[in-house]
Amino acid sequence: MPHDLALAIDLGGTKVEASLVDREGTLLDGSRSRKSTGAAKTSDELAASVRAVVTSALAALPAEGRVSGVGIGAAGPIRQAEGLVSPLNLPAWRDYPLHELVSEIVHEHAADLVADAPVTLRMDGLCITLAEHWVGAAQGVGNVLGMVVSTGIGGGLILGGHTVPGPTGNAGHIGHVEVAGFDDPCACGGRGCLEAVASGPRSVAWAREQGWTGTTGEELAESYAAGDGVARAAIMRSGRAIGRAIGSVTALVDLELVAVGGGFSRATPDLFDHIRIGIDEHSGLEFTRKVRVVPSLLSDIGPLVGAAALVHRADLL
Amino acid sequence: MPHDLALAIDLGGTKVEASLVDREGTLLDGSRSRKSTGAAKTSDELAASVRAVVTSALAALPAEGRVSGVGIGAAGPIRQAEGLVSPLNLPAWRDYPLHELVSEIVHEHAADLVADAPVTLRMDGLCITLAEHWVGAAQGVGNVLGMVVSTGIGGGLILGGHTVPGPTGNAGHIGHVEVAGFDDPCACGGRGCLEAVASGPRSVAWAREQGWTGTTGEELAESYAAGDGVARAAIMRSGRAIGRAIGSVTALVDLELVAVGGGFSRATPDLFDHIRIGIDEHSGLEFTRKVRVVPSLLSDIGPLVGAAALVHRADLL
Repeated sequence: MPHDLALAIDLGGTKVEASLVDREGTLLDGSRSRKSTGAAKTSDELAASVRAVVTSALAALPAEGRVSGVGIGAAGPIRQAEGLVSPLNLPAWRDYPLHELVSEIVHEHAADLVADAPVTLRMDGLCITLAEHWVGAAQGVGNVLGMVVSTGIGGGLILGGHTVPGPTGNAGHIGHVEVAGFDDPCACGGRGCLEAVASGPRSVAWAREQGWTGTTGEELAESYAAGDGVARAAIMRSGRAIGRAIGSVTALVDLELVAVGGGFSRATPDLFDHIRIGIDEHSGLEFTRKVRVVPSLLSDIGPLVGAAALVHRADLL
Repeated sequence: MPHDLALAIDLGGTKVEASLVDREGTLLDGSRSRKSTGAAKTSDELAASVRAVVTSALAALPAEGRVSGVGIGAAGPIRQAEGLVSPLNLPAWRDYPLHELVSEIVHEHAADLVADAPVTLRMDGLCITLAEHWVGAAQGVGNVLGMVVSTGIGGGLILGGHTVPGPTGNAGHIGHVEVAGFDDPCACGGRGCLEAVASGPRSVAWAREQGWTGTTGEELAESYAAGDGVARAAIMRSGRAIGRAIGSVTALVDLELVAVGGGFSRATPDLFDHIRIGIDEHSGLEFTRKVRVVPSLLSDIGPLVGAAALVHRADLL
């Protein structure tokens, strides 16, 4: 059924996007749209942004098309069973009923076309992991951590061939797995969380404390490429911490593969060498060292493809 | 079928035990036996110990009894699919075919009574978690970490109502989840692993470094009860590290409940207060703080009951 489409929605800290996605994981031409979100927005403004992108995507539905389901990936934490979201970087939304909002918008605008379409909400980290498993770097692998290393650090789990959302929907928060030897304060209130050590902004901050004078992750990558010693130390530090956390996670759930994406993960291909060093430092145990770490094969469409997988690959849920 | 029995075997670093266990999780009177193992034993001596306990348990099979399956819990690491074990504290056995050995012994001694009995091997941490879920502190809870805090620190996972062995069978190794702020060298080759910080022997060693003069976990517990400042600091340190690791694990897999057993976990009931402080220190995230931590309800029969659950509760595998 070539016109069996998913409506995919990705809600993040800086933007919300929607698109129609076919059964092969391809975004339908002209159906993708984006609106900004952000910490300054009110709840009504956020809802209006969601409404705008969903309406725009549905307006692109071809005459012969049909929406078989709606998939929503949202920044966490969430309360999956209740359909509520509390994205850390969107303070206006705490326990906000996003599932209900999307259901209403969809039925207002296209009740005839989506009458029976189920609406499925998951954390965004789970969605990007699904996308890697479906069409990315983790195809055919049953025990996978998908990771995003960017402004924050997040992820999702597939174990034994199925997604692991957890009872509240928040499994996969590798950003809040601690790393030994570090004590950096984390936005979550803890200390030494991976996100507090190894994210793009935290790596930039660390480099600045050592005397580097740039201000962005992109500049840090440029300095690394130019051989700047502090920039090299900063990215090595990030990679080793990521590897140490992957080691802990593998000790716990016996991962086979980690697929790493996100802007800061592309700072330099060397990052993956530093991650490997971190994994080997973590432990000499054979079963933790066996984990493979590869770059994501998805571009910035990963979150939307993953949200669509909630519909098209519901067999993995 | 009251006489539908499991043959349960638990292989650990200091002993191997076997027993017949009924469908209610009760050990059959007179069927339990034990032999020592230990780092000094040769491979043949270890095999003879296994043979002795299995033979002894089978000799107790009542006339009207039937062995419907054999469950083996083994100290890790293991290679579950191949039936091989490499218990860290039994250096004579590396990739040893324990599944094959047990199958041979069982069929030699009772081929008529166990003709179709499947033999299932899992890591011991998974078995104790199954036991807690079946008849212990985690009944009715779908997302559980079972933990043993003793000479080492190990565990096992039930997520979404089913065990998570991992592709190699080694999931649940919480002892090798790192704890931020610590740098203690671990026997696994890493640094800052929970086991290297918080086990009984490591807590004793830390207390001695601070001037305490005892030598065992039992003495440390007595000093704690007597109000000794260093002993109190040592057990507080252990509990907080355990709590921090539980926080990391909950961030990753969204646990509902942790059931903690093992000799050192009974040093003082206060340990659970220190664990709670560690969880709250780990993060302010609501979904990590929601995890409950309770003492194991199983005595030292837990590992055998859990091995029997591999047979009687195969629906959870």
